[in-house]
Amino acid sequence: MINAALLERVRAAKTASRTLASLPSAVKDAALRAMAGRLRADREAILAANAKDLAGADAAGIAAPMRKRLILDAAKIEGMASALEEIASFPDPIGRLESPLTRPDGLEIARMRVPLGVIAMVYESRPNATSDAAGLCLKSGNAVILRGGKEALHSNLCIEAALRGAAEATGVPAGWLHVVATTDRTQVKELLALDTLIDLVVPRGGEELIRFVSENARMPVLRHAQGVCHVFVDASADLDMAEKIAVNAKAQNTAVCNAAEALLVHAVLKERFLPRVTKALIAAGVELRGDAAFVAADPRVIVARESDWGTEFLAPIMACRLVGSLDEALAHITKHGTRHSEAIVTGDTTNALRFQREVDASAVLVNASTRLNDGGVFGLGAELGISTSKLHAYGPMGVDELTTRKFVVTGNGHIRK
Amino acid sequence: MINAALLERVRAAKTASRTLASLPSAVKDAALRAMAGRLRADREAILAANAKDLAGADAAGIAAPMRKRLILDAAKIEGMASALEEIASFPDPIGRLESPLTRPDGLEIARMRVPLGVIAMVYESRPNATSDAAGLCLKSGNAVILRGGKEALHSNLCIEAALRGAAEATGVPAGWLHVVATTDRTQVKELLALDTLIDLVVPRGGEELIRFVSENARMPVLRHAQGVCHVFVDASADLDMAEKIAVNAKAQNTAVCNAAEALLVHAVLKERFLPRVTKALIAAGVELRGDAAFVAADPRVIVARESDWGTEFLAPIMACRLVGSLDEALAHITKHGTRHSEAIVTGDTTNALRFQREVDASAVLVNASTRLNDGGVFGLGAELGISTSKLHAYGPMGVDELTTRKFVVTGNGHIRK
Repeated sequence: MINAALLERVRAAKTASRTLASLPSAVKDAALRAMAGRLRADREAILAANAKDLAGADAAGIAAPMRKRLILDAAKIEGMASALEEIASFPDPIGRLESPLTRPDGLEIARMRVPLGVIAMVYESRPNATSDAAGLCLKSGNAVILRGGKEALHSNLCIEAALRGAAEATGVPAGWLHVVATTDRTQVKELLALDTLIDLVVPRGGEELIRFVSENARMPVLRHAQGVCHVFVDASADLDMAEKIAVNAKAQNTAVCNAAEALLVHAVLKERFLPRVTKALIAAGVELRGDAAFVAADPRVIVARESDWGTEFLAPIMACRLVGSLDEALAHITKHGTRHSEAIVTGDTTNALRFQREVDASAVLVNASTRLNDGGVFGLGAELGISTSKLHAYGPMGVDELTTRKFVVTGNGHIRK
Repeated sequence: MINAALLERVRAAKTASRTLASLPSAVKDAALRAMAGRLRADREAILAANAKDLAGADAAGIAAPMRKRLILDAAKIEGMASALEEIASFPDPIGRLESPLTRPDGLEIARMRVPLGVIAMVYESRPNATSDAAGLCLKSGNAVILRGGKEALHSNLCIEAALRGAAEATGVPAGWLHVVATTDRTQVKELLALDTLIDLVVPRGGEELIRFVSENARMPVLRHAQGVCHVFVDASADLDMAEKIAVNAKAQNTAVCNAAEALLVHAVLKERFLPRVTKALIAAGVELRGDAAFVAADPRVIVARESDWGTEFLAPIMACRLVGSLDEALAHITKHGTRHSEAIVTGDTTNALRFQREVDASAVLVNASTRLNDGGVFGLGAELGISTSKLHAYGPMGVDELTTRKFVVTGNGHIRK
């Protein structure tokens, strides 16, 4: 039997979703701006709740990358508020008519953007994701159910109170946002069985969480899976740029899914590039696990084991090897990559295009860091996660990705012949 | 343990999908035209195979709607061939760059259309769907695995031979198309477990088939579910048009999912419309199951039972009732509809727009028959099915719906700050 209180909240979300689907853009945008203001106003309360979460997490011995994602500070709260304002500034996708055409017999056909209905997100740490998800779902006319990790519960409930207070005062129907206030995984399983009420679930977190959600969900799942991302430095690369991108992709933030885990270098660059890139990465605090060439280039490089390829370290560790050609780099990425973010540094346009066409990943980057695969960077305002599923959405999911399109057809007595 | 021969064929499809992803448009289009020519050339052989299937189906006592869908004739084969030619005439979606933008810092971002990989379809009857699916998947750069019903096996194998012969002679890699030549459902279950090789499965058929696939598939599923479709005749409807649309939606072909199963009429039209529409429908061979008003309008109308609302008859049977308002019609459709095809006949633009906005269905039609919800009619050339899932595709699935979009990003040493 499902928890009665939970079921009632999900039913309330379904009811709210019908009103949300036709909520005027002006109401949604005013609510988003009010939510931003409330986050700023409630900053101290949110930070106090976050401090409580951090104390609890430390007592429980939380892993370092997860702790890092759990921390809020004034800058992160300002980032959450300004993301909501950016989302408010976007055009409303709902009701938009796309791909209009008139058939030879005069039948008028178009696609109309409509919300999905009720979206659930199951995630870990990252209390700022709570606000991003609420804002994106509201803008796209969806109700949203958020089940964050137990480590972030105080932060998430405090953010929920701020957002709901502001939005509901502006005319958004109660039931639009629900933070599941339980640390009990049984309730997550119950939630995942409610396929008549919830239209989509987005799991966002470690491999075990993704697997749990995928196996138990009866509704469609958009996976935000782990990122085993590569940087390939091609023969013709600008070596200053290559060094800068390799260090940024690995070391700018090692706790995130779009951080690079492996560096592939074209063999012709062995003498010119290996000494400097190993030096730069080690100076940035990175432990290198390399093939024979890398070990020869710097004695501080550890010998890589087979299991290092394809590992998401989420830590200042990087696997590195030489490859004989672009083809070899492509084969390595096909074998070990997780279709997340893949980068090439090259001066050769043909190789750049081939890499962009042939690499199967949600974002394929030329002369840019894997760390840029992000909804905010790509101009989506924020993201509900980065889909590594290929259906519906592939890459950062912004407002448009939380909608679908139905056909709207207008005739004048048209029938099937 | 999975059947070794089947696994080998699916692996061959995966291998072929990598080549198909970058197959030149000219090769694909030449193959599609050659396939059309071969279907015409092999017409007598295909009809002979179909006759064998029909004899077997009759011996097994096949249901009438399924038998109707199983029949091929010269016109249907010409329809299959010309659909392939129409698909050949479309622009190639693969590699197309969409939604390009340059961020304030100069980072260039676009979406590139790419194939999904390997698509499986599990379906019943309808051997013409075999050719449509093969054509749409080839155009969109996907390999395709088709598991039709046992009742259509001779037809499907004969069509497969024609299509493969023509396509592979034109340069399409072997492995691009595979008709599973088994009548054993265990093998379908095995197929549905191959989520590392198959990217999408489309079940198309009765409720039981859809449920079987949804419950057993480990890869994403796009459901082509049953259609409980309605025609609502509003107070301001042109009654000649309303009668014509009601008769067409119900009676033009009763064996298909976009046929209407229920007629809702605004109460103000009771005297003016009920006598004529009941007469016209009964004259078209339809059994009517109505509310008190309909029974009073024509003694041949049977009293509807509660279970008649929400039933997909797939037969010349129609449920019919009066509703007091547009709101009541909308509530009835929300309760009993299956999000497939819903039509309103109205002279009132406000009501038309409200119906189009508020009805949640893959196609919402104004002054047009539900029978028009079809990939061919909508200009998609053909369809792989009509998705009543909301994720990824909603409505007829043509070439574009068999692709996804990845982000392609070009920088000049851009890093994450």
